[in-house]
Order: sequence, then C-alpha cells, then structure tokens
Amino acid sequence: MRVVIALGGNALLRRGQALTAENQRENVRVAAEAMAPIANEHQLVISHGNGPQVGLLALQGAAYKADEAYPLDVLGAETEGMIGYMIEQEMGNLLPFEVPFATILTMIEVDPKDPAFADPTKFIGPVYEEAEAKRLAAEKDWAIKPDGDKWRRVVPSPLPKRIFEIRPIKWLLEQNTIVICAGGGGIPTVYDDDRKLHGVEAVIDKDLASELLARELDADLFVMATDADAVYLDWGKPEARGIKRAAPADMRQHEFAAGSMGPKVEAACQFAERTGNAAAIGALADLPRILEGTAGTTISGKSKGIDCHAPA
Amino acid sequence: MRVVIALGGNALLRRGQALTAENQRENVRVAAEAMAPIANEHQLVISHGNGPQVGLLALQGAAYKADEAYPLDVLGAETEGMIGYMIEQEMGNLLPFEVPFATILTMIEVDPKDPAFADPTKFIGPVYEEAEAKRLAAEKDWAIKPDGDKWRRVVPSPLPKRIFEIRPIKWLLEQNTIVICAGGGGIPTVYDDDRKLHGVEAVIDKDLASELLARELDADLFVMATDADAVYLDWGKPEARGIKRAAPADMRQHEFAAGSMGPKVEAACQFAERTGNAAAIGALADLPRILEGTAGTTISGKSKGIDCHAPA
Repeated sequence: MRVVIALGGNALLRRGQALTAENQRENVRVAAEAMAPIANEHQLVISHGNGPQVGLLALQGAAYKADEAYPLDVLGAETEGMIGYMIEQEMGNLLPFEVPFATILTMIEVDPKDPAFADPTKFIGPVYEEAEAKRLAAEKDWAIKPDGDKWRRVVPSPLPKRIFEIRPIKWLLEQNTIVICAGGGGIPTVYDDDRKLHGVEAVIDKDLASELLARELDADLFVMATDADAVYLDWGKPEARGIKRAAPADMRQHEFAAGSMGPKVEAACQFAERTGNAAAIGALADLPRILEGTAGTTISGKSKGIDCHAPA
Repeated sequence: MRVVIALGGNALLRRGQALTAENQRENVRVAAEAMAPIANEHQLVISHGNGPQVGLLALQGAAYKADEAYPLDVLGAETEGMIGYMIEQEMGNLLPFEVPFATILTMIEVDPKDPAFADPTKFIGPVYEEAEAKRLAAEKDWAIKPDGDKWRRVVPSPLPKRIFEIRPIKWLLEQNTIVICAGGGGIPTVYDDDRKLHGVEAVIDKDLASELLARELDADLFVMATDADAVYLDWGKPEARGIKRAAPADMRQHEFAAGSMGPKVEAACQFAERTGNAAAIGALADLPRILEGTAGTTISGKSKGIDCHAPA
C-alpha cells in the first residue's frame, strides 16, 4: 500500500514549547516511532508543517539588522531542509540501514490570479501592538490584521496547483524510498509574464498541499496526523462522539471548526472524492490502528451514514 | 556523459557583497546560465558551498536572544534547502519544463576518531576581539583561533566517508534528473555507541565531499568551478602560466596554496587516481570549454608532463 502522512505542527513542536533544536528533535523522534512500523510494511511519503519554524527564522532575520531579512519563500526552503533533516535522521535511526531515504525540496505552483492574493488571511510571525504593526506594514508593504487584541502580518493562502518535483518523488517511491517532501505546504511559486518561475510571499495550506501530493502519487491512503484522536460530531457538547467512518457526502452535512478540523475534513473529502481511495484523520500515536481502520476518522466511499467510535 | 559540478562559494556570493537573498539569486542566475547548456547534453549533478550562508544564519540566531541558536548541523540543513531552492529554480527557468530536478538533503558520515576532531581548523562565523572570543569560547564550549589580528570560532573538518542518500541520487540520475545535493560539503554525521546517527558541529571540505560524490556516482567528469580560470604554476610570478592538462603524478610534484587551490588540486588528483576519469578546475563562465578541454585545468591519466595554456 502507498501511504502519504501529513504531520501536523504539533508533531514537531507542542504548544508553548521553546523552539529549540532539541525540543523539535525530541518531538520528531516520537513521530518517527509512530511512523517506523508503517514504513516496514508500506511505501511511505511524509509531509509536514513549518509554521513555528518559519516564524522563528523571520524573528531571527529581523533581530539581525546588518543584512536584509530573507523573503518567505526562502525561509520556507530553509525549513524544508531543517525539518526534513530531523525526520530523515530520526526515522533512519529506527529502520534498517538498507531502507533508502530522500528529503526533496518541493515547489508548488499557485495561480497569481487566485482570489487569495486579494484577501490575505494566513497569520504569520509574531504579534505586535497596533502602532508597531502599522509602522511595519507601511515599511515592508505587509498586509496586517488584528489577532485578538494584538496585530499580526497576514499573507495569502492560495490553492496548490502543481507539484514541480512530483516525478522524482514518484521514481523514488517506486524504489521503495521513504520520501519527505512538500514541507510547510511546499514553496509557493508562480510563473510571471515571461514564463519565469519565482517564489511568492504566501503560504499554501499544508493539508491541501498534502492532498494534492497524495492524489498525484495515487496513494492508497492519505493520513493527516494531528493532536485529536478523531473528527468529532457535536464537539464540545456532552453528546460529542468521534467519527469512525463516513463518506465525503456524510461529512459535508456537518460543519467543522474553520481554524482546525475544517480544512482537514475538506482535504480528506477532496481526496476521497477525487481518487475513490480513503483519507484518515487521527492521532500520531494511533497510526497503526488508523491504518487498520480501528482508530481515527476514515473518510471514503459512498454514503452509508456516519459510523462513530464507541464512547470511551 | 555524467558530470558533477562543485560550485565554489563565489558562484553564490562575491567577496564583499551583502548577503541578501537578491544578491545570492543574481549570482545563482549567472551560475545557472553557465550550467544550463551542459544539462542539455549530459547528466548533471550540482554541489555547492555554503560558508557565508551558514555564517549569516549563525549571526541571525545569535542576534535573536529569546531562543537558543541552532547547532551547525541544523544550520547546514537550512542552507541546503535555501541554496538548493535558488539553484533549482534558476536552472529550471533556463531549461525546458520537461527536465526534472531534485534537491536532495545530504548527510555524510564522518569518523568520530578522525584526527580533525582533535585539531579544529575551519574558521566559521564572525570575527571577534580576543576577550570576547574567549568569553564565548568558555560560555559555548567553542574552540577559537586567531585570524589575523582578530579571533574566530574554529570547527573540525573531518574527511567524508559515506553519503547516505547516494542510492536515491543515483536512481534520479538514471532518470536524467538534474540533482542538487551535498551542499556545503553535506551535513557531517557520526554513529554513536548505540549505532544511532546524529549530526556533529563540523564542516566537511566541499571539494572532498564532491569528490566522494563524483566517485560514488561513477562520474565521467568532476569539475570544480571557481573564480580562477585555471590552476597556475609559479602563481604570482612573472612566469606564471595556467595548466591545461596534467596527470595527478605531475601535479603532486608541485605545491599549491593551502587555503585556495591546494585542496581543489588534491580532490582532483584523488578523483583521477581512484576512478581513471578526469577532474577539472576552472572558471564557471568557461564551463563549456572546460568540458571540451580547451579551458581550465584538466587532471587525468598517466604522467606525460604538464601541458600549459598559451599565455594570454
């Protein structure tokens, strides 16, 4: 079976943890332990988030005044190297030496006419007081928005259209290489009027980028690993229950939180509808049981009603 | 023909230039223009330096006090992503869309018993006054050495033993992918007593790492692109003349500057001796003529005496 796993941000850094290399490596080690048994039996592709890491690089760049800070596409490329390195090394330490690995820098085409460019929504970097945020916005040509009682930079989140490195990724999978790619949703790139490709200051949703990746690789299963053990109906209410299995049509009857499960459910539904294969959402630690269908939420097939897990 | 090109630091940043993303991209574009014609006719692997880029990331990390700076192996991984991204994008803009590219994160094994670990020699990062350097050395457990009338951190430069990603690199080459890898000499890694791999704070010489890469890939030609148009005999004297062709045995009769041509000549001699194929040293802009043997210094074969270029 060919499996694409998208690692959520918490797989790399738990909320509130300091962004040290050591903390990140410890979390990556836990993720690697969850993924290694799968790699023993299946073809495996791993994608991952990069939000806190890009944020830190931006802060470091801003703190060092002597040279101009790098733009977001370059910072994204840096995080793909850094996070890929940790995942590759920690996975390698759990698997036989013979298992080949490759971390592939990934550029993803976005449409310069994507409506997201007219309405930046994705928060990035640190929070500022309003006056400071407005000063920075004027100086650096940023879009800014209020985030609670502070302000932050926002960038567009356009849809992923095409993964430039998809053929090398496929060729390596055919050789049973474990491939780490599309980190941070890939580096968003556009063609200009001269048909030259260049990076843009935007962030592609990691789950949508991973869905495109899984689809283009004809993955049998696309798993989004997160800190929730399933998608819940009536989340936050006494009657809350974790969904075990549902069809995309069933899922679309419900609303899920825009900032957290919503995009994951949407990516899972798209994958299931477009490929006929299964997508799953669940906890990293449950990965083996998610593959068996006994944990997490599996989304696939035609509507037969929503099947929920037994209450704990 | 299979060609490995090692790009010198100046291909990415000219001496004295500010380390902005824009400056680096402009230089990468010039390098890409020199390499693109070769990619049209031959299998191509590109490696590159990362000295100034790692230096800048270290400065940025030090300037931002809120979180601990990342260790050198992690910074190396960041630069492999960043520089690989620029090379891949700029090369891609010069070649047909159908040409596949892959930038591969590269870890290289070094021997923890390598004598280099007992005698760190490679300068890294900014210069300091003596007192400040000694304070940092005590605080961060750095080795430091005088560099002119200032002081700098030094790290070991162990020999490269094994490239972990060599099989994926080969598989991609067999599909005529242009592969960018072994950036900055690769990320130096060692096995600890538990046979776990981890990064070390060291720098592998880029030319020696590239020689190992070229050798393990059975490259027909290994080119080190630099800012000199050839290796010179009697450099700095009126009778200075550029070497056109020589055997390793001929080159070993002469001494070349330890800080610049010496290591390149040594890497070229090793490659020619170990593979029987040719290595070349010359200017980036001369690449097509270096492949023809009409520019640069080609080192190969058995001793027939040194053949020099006609004086300009």
